[in-house]
Amino acid sequence: MAPSVDIRTHAAQPAPAKTHVPLKAAPPTLSPEEALRAKFAHLEHHINSLSRQRAPSPLKDILKFMRIDGMISLAGGLPHPSLFPFDSIHVSTYDSATRMAENPTDIAKVDVCVEKDLAGHSTDLSTALQYGPYNGIQPLMNWMAKFIEHAYHPGYPDWQMIMDGGSTDGWAKVANLLLEDGDNLLVEAHTYPSGQALWIPMGVTAVPIEMDMDGLVPEVLARILDSWDAERLPQRKPKVLYCVPVGQNPTGSTLTAERKQQIYDICVRHDIVIVEDDPYYFMQLPTYRPGGPHALPPPVTDADAFLTSMVPTFLHHDRDGRVIRLETVSKTVAPGFRTGFIVCNPLFQERLARATEVATQAPSGWSQAILCELLHTWGHDGYVRWLAGIRETYAMRRDWICDSIATHFDVDWEDANADGVAVYNKDQNRAALVFRFVPPAAGMFLWLKLDLEAHPAYRRLCAARAPAPEDAWAAAFWRELVVARVLLTPGTYYKPWQGAKAADVPAAPGHAFFRLAFSTTPRDELDEGIRRMAEVFRASWTSV
Amino acid sequence: MAPSVDIRTHAAQPAPAKTHVPLKAAPPTLSPEEALRAKFAHLEHHINSLSRQRAPSPLKDILKFMRIDGMISLAGGLPHPSLFPFDSIHVSTYDSATRMAENPTDIAKVDVCVEKDLAGHSTDLSTALQYGPYNGIQPLMNWMAKFIEHAYHPGYPDWQMIMDGGSTDGWAKVANLLLEDGDNLLVEAHTYPSGQALWIPMGVTAVPIEMDMDGLVPEVLARILDSWDAERLPQRKPKVLYCVPVGQNPTGSTLTAERKQQIYDICVRHDIVIVEDDPYYFMQLPTYRPGGPHALPPPVTDADAFLTSMVPTFLHHDRDGRVIRLETVSKTVAPGFRTGFIVCNPLFQERLARATEVATQAPSGWSQAILCELLHTWGHDGYVRWLAGIRETYAMRRDWICDSIATHFDVDWEDANADGVAVYNKDQNRAALVFRFVPPAAGMFLWLKLDLEAHPAYRRLCAARAPAPEDAWAAAFWRELVVARVLLTPGTYYKPWQGAKAADVPAAPGHAFFRLAFSTTPRDELDEGIRRMAEVFRASWTSV
Repeated sequence: MAPSVDIRTHAAQPAPAKTHVPLKAAPPTLSPEEALRAKFAHLEHHINSLSRQRAPSPLKDILKFMRIDGMISLAGGLPHPSLFPFDSIHVSTYDSATRMAENPTDIAKVDVCVEKDLAGHSTDLSTALQYGPYNGIQPLMNWMAKFIEHAYHPGYPDWQMIMDGGSTDGWAKVANLLLEDGDNLLVEAHTYPSGQALWIPMGVTAVPIEMDMDGLVPEVLARILDSWDAERLPQRKPKVLYCVPVGQNPTGSTLTAERKQQIYDICVRHDIVIVEDDPYYFMQLPTYRPGGPHALPPPVTDADAFLTSMVPTFLHHDRDGRVIRLETVSKTVAPGFRTGFIVCNPLFQERLARATEVATQAPSGWSQAILCELLHTWGHDGYVRWLAGIRETYAMRRDWICDSIATHFDVDWEDANADGVAVYNKDQNRAALVFRFVPPAAGMFLWLKLDLEAHPAYRRLCAARAPAPEDAWAAAFWRELVVARVLLTPGTYYKPWQGAKAADVPAAPGHAFFRLAFSTTPRDELDEGIRRMAEVFRASWTSV
Repeated sequence: MAPSVDIRTHAAQPAPAKTHVPLKAAPPTLSPEEALRAKFAHLEHHINSLSRQRAPSPLKDILKFMRIDGMISLAGGLPHPSLFPFDSIHVSTYDSATRMAENPTDIAKVDVCVEKDLAGHSTDLSTALQYGPYNGIQPLMNWMAKFIEHAYHPGYPDWQMIMDGGSTDGWAKVANLLLEDGDNLLVEAHTYPSGQALWIPMGVTAVPIEMDMDGLVPEVLARILDSWDAERLPQRKPKVLYCVPVGQNPTGSTLTAERKQQIYDICVRHDIVIVEDDPYYFMQLPTYRPGGPHALPPPVTDADAFLTSMVPTFLHHDRDGRVIRLETVSKTVAPGFRTGFIVCNPLFQERLARATEVATQAPSGWSQAILCELLHTWGHDGYVRWLAGIRETYAMRRDWICDSIATHFDVDWEDANADGVAVYNKDQNRAALVFRFVPPAAGMFLWLKLDLEAHPAYRRLCAARAPAPEDAWAAAFWRELVVARVLLTPGTYYKPWQGAKAADVPAAPGHAFFRLAFSTTPRDELDEGIRRMAEVFRASWTSV
C-alpha cells in the first residue's frame, strides 16, 4: 500500500510555523482538506489568537512516509505493542434490551471482548493501547459519525468530529478556541458553575439571558444583541452562546424546536457561534401527568421512531457551520469513559486538533476499545434501545419526584404560568404561594422558583433594607433544610458571576431558587426527602 | 459517619471568587491544607496570572454536607450507577515475571478483574465509572504514592500528586500553571517538538542549553543564567527548566547524579522550577559492550536493588518543592492508559487541581480501574519485576542497533569524545569521519551527530555561501535515505524554534543530526535498515 507521496519533493524540514499568518492566506493550490476548510472562511474570525498561532508538530509530517511500500522505519518513537502486558479484555455488559426501569433482578449479559490482535472484533488492543492520532481509533469514529448523521441529520454535509475527554474537556477546548480575554459570552440566566470556573479566569464575562419554562427566551436574546451597539459599547459584543438546550442544568428546561430555530436565526444575524452542550438530549421525557401510578410505556421497538420523536438539535438547524455540538456518553452509558465528540465545521475541527495533539491527545485506549466494541456489539438499534431504556428510567424517576411534591404539598395544576405550576403548603388553604415548578420534560433536574413575597423573614429583611435580601434569605432557609437532613443545591450557585463575586450579582427580586436532582436517590428516600422539605417550608412560612 | 461539619455556620453561598486576591492573603486561621501550602509560599510568584485567578466551583463545597449522617441528598447531579450497563471486567494480563526479552511463545496470564460492586478487588466499577474528584479513585492514588516514596525517596516530605491524562497533558497543565506570554523557557538544545507546539503559541520563547553525551551541560546553564541580567535584559529571565533527564528525546542522553545535583543547585540559586519529564526513567540500560552475542543478565529478584541501581530523580534532589515530576506508565505498561501523575508541592498541586476540574477532570475510569487492579494484582515487587523486564527488552534492542552499526560501519571504539565514538564508512580506511554516536544508556533513541566537514556537497554549499547549508544538506541526505527505503527522523525537527521558523534557527556549524528509534523494529528489519543507511552514507561521502 504505497500512497502517492512524492518522496523527492518533501524536504526534511518542520512545517513552517504559521505564526501571525492569517489562516486564509492559503497557498494557491489547496489540498482537499484546505479546500474544505476554505468553505468555512466566513467563520475564521471567530478563532482566537492563541489558536490561530498553533502549528502542527513536524513529527506528524513523517507519518505518511512510514506507509511507503518497503520502508523500514526507525523514525517512530513508540513502545513495541508486544510489550503491552495484556492479551484480551472481556466486559460483562447488559443486554441493550434490558428495561432498567423494571428494576430487573436477573439481567441478561453480553460479552464485549477486545483481543490483542484484530480477531473478529471491531478493534484490537495493540492499536487502541498504542499512541495514536488525536481522533483515536477509526472504527469508533466511523460508528459515531454514522450515528450522528442518522440521529441528528446535521443541517450541512461537511461537519466533522474530534474526540474529547468528555464534555467538560470539550467545552474547555472550545472556549480556548473561541474566547479571548475581555470577551463577553452569552449564557443562560442560570448556568453551570464549572463552566464559569473555566471562563472567569480567562477574563471572560457572562451575559445572562433570561429563561422561562421553555429555556432561554429568544426575544430577550434578540433584544440584547440588537441593542448592543447602542447600549453596551465599548463592551465587546458577544460572539459565542453557550447553552444546554435540553434538560438544562440547573433548571431542567428544554428548548422547543421553534425556539431553537428562532435562536439559530438570531445567531446567524449577529454572527454568533452556538455551543450546544447537550448531555441530556436522549433523556427527553414524556409529559408528566399528575396522579399515579404511572404505567411503563410499551418498549421501544422502532429505533427511527424513537430518534425522530426527539426535539431536533441545533446541529440539525445549522446551515453554515456555526454550531459546535458537544456529544457525550456520560449520562447515557457512564461518565467514566471520559470520551466524547465535538461536532463542528472543518475549520474549527482542524484548530481543535492542533490543541488536542499538544495536550490530551486521544482519550484513553481502554475507554475507546470498550466503547467501540460495545457499540458494535449492541449495534445501532441496540444502542438506541438502550437510550430508550435510560429515558424510561428517568421518566419514572421524574414521576416519582413530581408525585412526591403532589403528595406533600398542595399543587394547583390549573394555575400554570411561564414559571410552572403553583405550589402551596399543605392544609393551609392556599394562603400563600410558596414556589412554582415545571415537571421536567428532560434530564435529571427539577427547579424550584420560590415566591418570597408572603414570607415573614423575607419581609423583615426588605423592611430593614438588608443587602441582597433574597440571597440572605436563601442561605438561612438552606441551613434549615440541612438541619432537617435534606440537601438541595442552592440556586445562587448557578448565578453567572460575571467576574465579580456571586454575592454582587443581583437576585431575582422576591425570588429564590433551588435545584433538586432526581437521578440517584431511591424512591423511598426521595419521598422522605420531599416530606422533610415540605415540613421545612410549612414551618418557615408560618414562623413569626 | 458524621464529619464535624457545623451546618449552622455554612452559608449556602458559592465560595467567593478569588480574582485578583493574592493567594498568600490567607485568612488568619489556616486550614491544615492552607497551612501546608503556606510552607511553599516562597514559590507562589511562579504561578501565572491565569492560574492565580482560578476559584473552586461552589458545587464542590456541598460534597461535605452529603456525608452528614442521615442526610438525604437531592443535590448531586450524578447518573445512577445501576444504569452503567456493566457487571465486571476481566483483563487477561501477563504474569509480571514474564521475560519479554526471551520472546516467549507461551506467556503465563493472570486475571485482572474489577466488578461492579467492591468484592475482594482493589476498586469497583460503580465508583470508577462515576463522576469523581479530580484525583480519581483513592486506592490507585494510595498505591502510586507509596511507590513514588519507595522508588524515588523525594527530597522533602510534603510532596503531593495530581492525576493527569498522560505526560503530554501533564506538561500542558504545568505550562499553563507557570508560563506567561513573553516568558523565556530553558530547554535542552534538542527538544521534543510537541512540547514546542504547545509553548510557541503561548508566546513563550525557548532558551536552548547545550548538551553533550551526558545531557545538558550544567556549566552552560550556569553561564546563561549568571550573565542574564548583564547580557539579555530586557528579555525576561527564565523561571522554568523543561527537561527529559533520562534517555532524552531525541538524543538518548542521560544526566548523571552529579549533573542533576549541579543543575538543581543552579536552579535554586536562580529560582528556577525544574519540570522533570521522565518517561524513560526505568529504561536505564546497562553499559553497552561492543561485540556480541549479548547474554541476558539473570532475572531481577530484588526489587529494592533494581530501584536503587537507577540514577536518582530530580525529585530526590529536591529540598524546597521546585521540582515538578511527570510520572507516566506510557512507556512501561501502555500509552493507551492516558493516565499519569504530576508530583509537585502542595501549592502547585492545588492550582493544578482547579485547572483540572474545569477541563479533563479525572482520567478514564476504565484506565484507572484496570491500572489500579493491575498494580494490586502484581504488587509492588511484581510491578518492579515487570519494569526490570521492560528494561531488559530495551537493553537487548539497544544492543541490536549498536551491533548493527558496528557491522555495517567501521566504528573506532577507542576514539570517544563528548559526542560519542567515531564512526567511518566501511572499507574506506577511515578516510573521513561520518558521524559520532553514544550507545544509549537509557530509553529508546540513538542519536547521530554527522560530521560534514569532509562531505563534498556540503563543502560546495559552504563555498557557494548557501543559506543554512547544514539544513539544506540534511534535507537532501534525508531524501536519499527515503529513496533507499529507510526512514530516520531529521534532527531539525528537534530544534527549539524560538517562535520563529525552524529554518531561521542556526544549525551547529558543520554538523547534522538524525534520531534512530530502536523500540519497535524487529531485529532483522532493524539490521537491514542500518545496512541501507550505511550504503547511503558510503555513496554520499564518495559522490562528487
